[in-house]
Amino acid sequence: MKIIILKENLNAGLNIVGRVAGKNLTLPILNNILLSTEQNFLSLSSTDLELGIKYWCLGKIEKEGSLTVPAKILSSFVNLLPEKKIEIEDKNQTLYINCENNKTQIKGLDAKDYPIIPKIEDETFVELDIAPFCEGLSQVVDFAAINQARPELSGVYLNFQKDRVQITTTDSFRLAEKTLYFEEKINKECSLILPQKTARELVNIFSEKTGKLKLHFSPNQILFEYPMAEMQRPQIQIISRLIEGDYPDYQSIIPKKQEARVVLFKNELLNQIKTASIFSGKGNEVKVKIDPKKKEVEIFSQSPELGENRAILKGEISEESKELETVFNYRFLVDGLANIKSSKVIFELNGEDGPAVLRPEGDNNYLYVVMPIKAT
Amino acid sequence: MKIIILKENLNAGLNIVGRVAGKNLTLPILNNILLSTEQNFLSLSSTDLELGIKYWCLGKIEKEGSLTVPAKILSSFVNLLPEKKIEIEDKNQTLYINCENNKTQIKGLDAKDYPIIPKIEDETFVELDIAPFCEGLSQVVDFAAINQARPELSGVYLNFQKDRVQITTTDSFRLAEKTLYFEEKINKECSLILPQKTARELVNIFSEKTGKLKLHFSPNQILFEYPMAEMQRPQIQIISRLIEGDYPDYQSIIPKKQEARVVLFKNELLNQIKTASIFSGKGNEVKVKIDPKKKEVEIFSQSPELGENRAILKGEISEESKELETVFNYRFLVDGLANIKSSKVIFELNGEDGPAVLRPEGDNNYLYVVMPIKAT
Repeated sequence: MKIIILKENLNAGLNIVGRVAGKNLTLPILNNILLSTEQNFLSLSSTDLELGIKYWCLGKIEKEGSLTVPAKILSSFVNLLPEKKIEIEDKNQTLYINCENNKTQIKGLDAKDYPIIPKIEDETFVELDIAPFCEGLSQVVDFAAINQARPELSGVYLNFQKDRVQITTTDSFRLAEKTLYFEEKINKECSLILPQKTARELVNIFSEKTGKLKLHFSPNQILFEYPMAEMQRPQIQIISRLIEGDYPDYQSIIPKKQEARVVLFKNELLNQIKTASIFSGKGNEVKVKIDPKKKEVEIFSQSPELGENRAILKGEISEESKELETVFNYRFLVDGLANIKSSKVIFELNGEDGPAVLRPEGDNNYLYVVMPIKAT
Repeated sequence: MKIIILKENLNAGLNIVGRVAGKNLTLPILNNILLSTEQNFLSLSSTDLELGIKYWCLGKIEKEGSLTVPAKILSSFVNLLPEKKIEIEDKNQTLYINCENNKTQIKGLDAKDYPIIPKIEDETFVELDIAPFCEGLSQVVDFAAINQARPELSGVYLNFQKDRVQITTTDSFRLAEKTLYFEEKINKECSLILPQKTARELVNIFSEKTGKLKLHFSPNQILFEYPMAEMQRPQIQIISRLIEGDYPDYQSIIPKKQEARVVLFKNELLNQIKTASIFSGKGNEVKVKIDPKKKEVEIFSQSPELGENRAILKGEISEESKELETVFNYRFLVDGLANIKSSKVIFELNGEDGPAVLRPEGDNNYLYVVMPIKAT
C-alpha cells in the first residue's frame, strides 16, 4: 500500500471512523482502524461487532494494499500534523507516514485478521432528509431504557408507515415520540428497533451534514449510506445490528384527552422547575398545581432540611381545565422541556396518577409523556 | 435582618464567596455563607479556616441582623432568579427570600456559631497591579509540589525586594519564576509562601478585574484587598494563612550559561512535542537533539509497541552551541511551553544531565527550568 493524501481528508475520515474503534480489551484488533485501497480511494473501517463504520477518502493510490493500526494513535497523530500532503506506505506490518519534516512509524496488525463488516445488498428502502432525521433522533434518544431487562425498550423504535416514520423511545417513566413526514409516499411499511448507541452515533456523525441518508435493510441489520459530494457513490456507511423483539403498543399510553391544559413560556417553566429542584430533596419531587379560578399555575417544592420554594407562573389555562395537583420527578420535566424547541410549551395534566404530556406549541410532530410520582 | 438588593449584586458576591464554602464534612457550618448587615451593605463571608473571603454588596438595609445559610443552595437559587429586586428577611433562623412571584425559605444556622475570620490591622504594605500579578501567579502556580513532604515547596514563594517581586514555584523537577517590577520602590524587603489554593483562588477571582490589589501582612497571614468602585472602602477581602518554613535558595538551580541555545516558534515546538508524546510510551520520554553543523533541531520518540516519530524543526541555533541530545518528560515541556505567551521561545540546553531553560523571546521576566530524564 502506498498513498498520497491530504491531511484534512484523512483527518475527516479518522474523526468519524475512530468513534467506534478503541474500546475493546478481549479482541485487541478492534482497537484498530482498517486502512485499504479501493480504486482511487483509501477506505477506513472500524467496528465493535455491533456497529461498523466505513469511510472513503479521495487520495492518490500508488500501490494497493491494506493494514490495520491503532485508531487512537493514528487519529491523535494525524490530527496534530500540518495541513499538508501525507505519504502513507506499509512495510512489514508497519505504517510509514511522512509529512513535511515529520517521519513516523506506527506498528500495525494484519488486515486479514480484521473482522469482516457484513454487507447489505438490498435495494434502498427509503431516503431521509438528514437534518430533521438527526434532530428527531436527538429529541428522543435519551429516553430509551437503561435497564436491559426488556431489551426492546433499550433501543429507538422506528415505525415506517406509508407517509411517515415515527421515532419513539420509552423507559416506562416517560415516552418521547417524533413524527417525520415523507415528501413521497413509500411502498412498504415496516418497523425496527435501533440500538441507542447507533442512534447516538448517527446524531454525532450526521447532525452537521446536509442532504439525504439512504437506508437499506436486512432482517437483522440496517445500513445508513451518505453520498460523496458530486459522486454517485457512498462516502460514509454505517451498518448496525437491530434489536430483536416486539416494541410494545405504546400508543395506548399517550392520553387522548386531559383534565387540565395550560400554555406556558418554555424557558420560564424550565427555569422555575430548576429553581424548585434545589429544594426538592432526595425524592426529586416538584408539585405542579393548576388553579383555573385564580388563573394560576403554581410550582412548589420543599424539603424538611433545606426549606421550600413556591412560584406562580403566568399561563393560558384552557377553559374546561379542572383544579388539580400533580407531583413529578423534576428531572423528567427538565429532560422533556430541554427537547422542546418552541418558545411556548403546552402542558396537559391528568391528575395525581395520570400521565401528563408536554408538546411544543404549534408543532404536532413531537410529544413527551411523563408519569407523575404517585401520592404516598 | 431585612434587606432589599438587586439580584445581580447578590449574585456577583455569591459567585466569589461561594468558592470557599461547601466542602466541609466535620464542621457543617463551614458549608454555609454568613450574611450580615454592615451600615449600607450586606456582607457575605465564607472560610475553610485556611482561606477566608469577604464581599460587600450595596443594598437597602431595612433591619440589621445576620444569619448563615448553605452556600450551594443560596448560590444555585439566586443564580436562577430573574434580574430583579430581591427582598431578604430572617425569622427563626430561616431566610425568607421574595423575588417577583417566587417565595422561598432557606433554613439556616445561627451566625454566632460561624467561625470568626481573623483581621489584619497592619498598614498596607504594597499595592500591585491586578492584571500582571494574576498573570504571573497563573504562569507559576501549577508547578508547586503536590507532595507535602516539604510543605514549603507546596506553596508559591513571593520574594518582595525594593523594586520587584519574584513569584516562584518548584516541585524539584521543574521551576518557574516570574518577576514583576514596581513603579515605585517599596520600603522593606520580605518574603512569604502562599498556599497553592490561595494563589489559584486569587487568579480565579481577580483575573477578569482591573485596578490595584492592596496587600497587608501579619507574621503568619496575608490580606488581599480589592476596592469598591468609586468608594474608599474594600469590596473584596481575601485572607489566607501563610506556609511556615524557609524557601530553598533556588537561584543556584537556574543555569547561568548553556551548552546549546536555540530559538524556535513556540507553537511549532509545542505541537511537535505533543506529536512525539503519542509515541513516547510509559516513560513519557522525548529526545531533543541539537545539531549545530546541520543547523537542525530534532525531536524524537519511540516505543517498542507503538512505533516512532522523528521531526526536524527549523530554529536559530546560536553559534557557540555544542552538538547534544537531552531526554525530557514531554509533560514538563508541554507545561512550560503552555505558559509562554510569545510567538518564539528560547530553549537553552545543558546536555544529558543539566537543567534546561525555556524563556519567552523578548521577555526576561519569566523563565521555566526543567530537569532532563537522566540516561539509564
